[in-house]
Amino acid sequence: VPSETPIITLTTDFGSSDGFVGIVKGVILSLSPQARLVDLSHDIASWDVGAASWIIWNGHRFFPPGTIHLCVVDPAVGSTSQRGIILTDGSAFFVGPDNGIFTLLLEEQREWRSIELTNKELWRKEVSATFHTRDIYGPVCAHLANGKTTADFGAEVPMDTVTRLPVQKARQEGNAWEGSIVYIDKFGNMVSNIPAQAVKPGWRCSVKGAFIAKVGTTYASAPKEEFSAFVGSHGYLEVGAYQANAAEIWGGSVGASVRLEPT
Amino acid sequence: VPSETPIITLTTDFGSSDGFVGIVKGVILSLSPQARLVDLSHDIASWDVGAASWIIWNGHRFFPPGTIHLCVVDPAVGSTSQRGIILTDGSAFFVGPDNGIFTLLLEEQREWRSIELTNKELWRKEVSATFHTRDIYGPVCAHLANGKTTADFGAEVPMDTVTRLPVQKARQEGNAWEGSIVYIDKFGNMVSNIPAQAVKPGWRCSVKGAFIAKVGTTYASAPKEEFSAFVGSHGYLEVGAYQANAAEIWGGSVGASVRLEPT
Amino acid sequence: VPSETPIITLTTDFGSSDGFVGIVKGVILSLSPQARLVDLSHDIASWDVGAASWIIWNGHRFFPPGTIHLCVVDPAVGSTSQRGIILTDGSAFFVGPDNGIFTLLLEEQREWRSIELTNKELWRKEVSATFHTRDIYGPVCAHLANGKTTADFGAEVPMDTVTRLPVQKARQEGNAWEGSIVYIDKFGNMVSNIPAQAVKPGWRCSVKGAFIAKVGTTYASAPKEEFSAFVGSHGYLEVGAYQANAAEIWGGSVGASVRLEPT
Repeated sequence: VPSETPIITLTTDFGSSDGFVGIVKGVILSLSPQARLVDLSHDIASWDVGAASWIIWNGHRFFPPGTIHLCVVDPAVGSTSQRGIILTDGSAFFVGPDNGIFTLLLEEQREWRSIELTNKELWRKEVSATFHTRDIYGPVCAHLANGKTTADFGAEVPMDTVTRLPVQKARQEGNAWEGSIVYIDKFGNMVSNIPAQAVKPGWRCSVKGAFIAKVGTTYASAPKEEFSAFVGSHGYLEVGAYQANAAEIWGGSVGASVRLEPT
Repeated sequence: VPSETPIITLTTDFGSSDGFVGIVKGVILSLSPQARLVDLSHDIASWDVGAASWIIWNGHRFFPPGTIHLCVVDPAVGSTSQRGIILTDGSAFFVGPDNGIFTLLLEEQREWRSIELTNKELWRKEVSATFHTRDIYGPVCAHLANGKTTADFGAEVPMDTVTRLPVQKARQEGNAWEGSIVYIDKFGNMVSNIPAQAVKPGWRCSVKGAFIAKVGTTYASAPKEEFSAFVGSHGYLEVGAYQANAAEIWGGSVGASVRLEPT
Repeated sequence: VPSETPIITLTTDFGSSDGFVGIVKGVILSLSPQARLVDLSHDIASWDVGAASWIIWNGHRFFPPGTIHLCVVDPAVGSTSQRGIILTDGSAFFVGPDNGIFTLLLEEQREWRSIELTNKELWRKEVSATFHTRDIYGPVCAHLANGKTTADFGAEVPMDTVTRLPVQKARQEGNAWEGSIVYIDKFGNMVSNIPAQAVKPGWRCSVKGAFIAKVGTTYASAPKEEFSAFVGSHGYLEVGAYQANAAEIWGGSVGASVRLEPT
């Protein structure tokens, strides 16, 4: 493998029990035997496009230029109203359904372009109604890895026609910040949308209207099973508990309010 | 890696928590450093040989010729009565216990041959009683990938001695088809054994004796949380629900009856 | 890929839902595009350093010389009191926090050396307080794979300063052995610390003070859903049940007493 062979990452809600991800890899490797495949997540909650959007946004930043990202959480697969697209800023390539899965990427100011997937020559010959990842998106990723250019797959479409989900943004109120939980990870850490630059040591953090912790630096800033608030590895205020599941204990869920203020 | 290095897929019920799959990969890569490894599934329900048979049958079709498939769900590992085999049609190679795991493959009319694994020179030196995947099947796959021929591993055995589980087949009754659920995937979609060519738009589909949905084209043929029936990506009638778990809602399980008939 | 490109294994409690493991792989492949990555486990119970120690010890033995093992279960990540280390015997390389995760490795008599990770030139430029695997341990593994020597990462530290967790050891009492459960796998098999050489066919095995099974050779030594005791693939006495979850049925957990004695 020359080091320049692109990486293809895979993010889906397919789970790991049925072989669906392996099948997609078989299709990709049949077309692009040298592709290097990296799983980002396949255990997104079924049909949770919003969670996929966060995982792809958070994850893609750590892959080298030229990486191709297969991104599929697609409850409406096979609906006639829905198209597949390539989204690219010229450096990273995202392939998947145009159903809002790229929402958080599109929040970033870049030179985004979007191509509608219409060239069936670059799909599997028979396209099922329910497994476009195997029959369309996987082959498109493989052909991209093999050096096809985005224009080979179809025509560019206006960026303002690309689907975006509503985005919860934190806002400043005087000295304080009002935000919300946007993601909860497997440890029960609650990730907010309050950006790192707003977070000051010792400030008070509330979740769902009640004080939960002062701002520290890491999980272990608090005693065992107690809460801590800090800037997470993604660059936003996060609330966790030391060796315990903060979201479960506190009853936190995506959308819950978060407030950060001076003491 | 030359592009002709075979792929080795892995399908087991080993799960992902204990490191068993990683150990098998370590053994394979120690013998065949260039092998390309692809997980098909490791989250098959423990000891469910039938589910493994479906996953391997459904998945293997999407890998290039020459692919080697490690297939192990093996509750009776280490029993003296049980042998390991290579099953091959000259294009794909399947390695695992002769306990019925290859049942659905064998339903396909191909020039199958089966070789009993007896050449201990191609196993690990010490063979445990309980981890033949590490000590026998993994090494056999690695040596196959390295170019050994099937005759190197042992003698051919008659195909009628290879274990087959009972197979539920759909049957036609006048215009109608009577079949059953043969697999349920992680989304709760119920896969039947009624073949695609029997499925007509608008026909009535019943599961467990009660009408569930008319035949459409995909999950989103129905409103949210309602049922739809259609030809699945595997080529058989499937019953799902739009953004909901059809098997849970309907109480469907493997073996449940499915009926398809004109309206 | 020349066959001598090192393998990097990954063992964490990061789970598979959030993309954390994929991010670490992106970082590693950005620095070492030819690295071969193998997951050992990412589904260790959150914060369970002891289970990680067993999985790494059990798994590392099956990888070729030169393999690099990324080992991270790290509840106290980012605490000022905790250091990262490379542990090596000159053949295998282990990278992770010095929090006891290497305990069972250190029980083996080898020429261990330990290097404290202090050379920030070989880390990511910005180091978060909560994701050292992405920012420190992953890059260290990549640079090791690229040929850096251990001395490049920092100074050697005395082996008696490396953290060890308490280790439960089995002891002989006359003819009998008294030990305990040290690991339970996904099938519910209970792994003890009584070594293979102590295990004799037909001896009586008790768990939690009550007789559970005589010593046989494999799971299927017993009828369905009944218990069996035998030498497991790891080289220690193990108690399982044929096609059933022994630990659940018997109420076994890590630390429970195990006794082995002649009949």
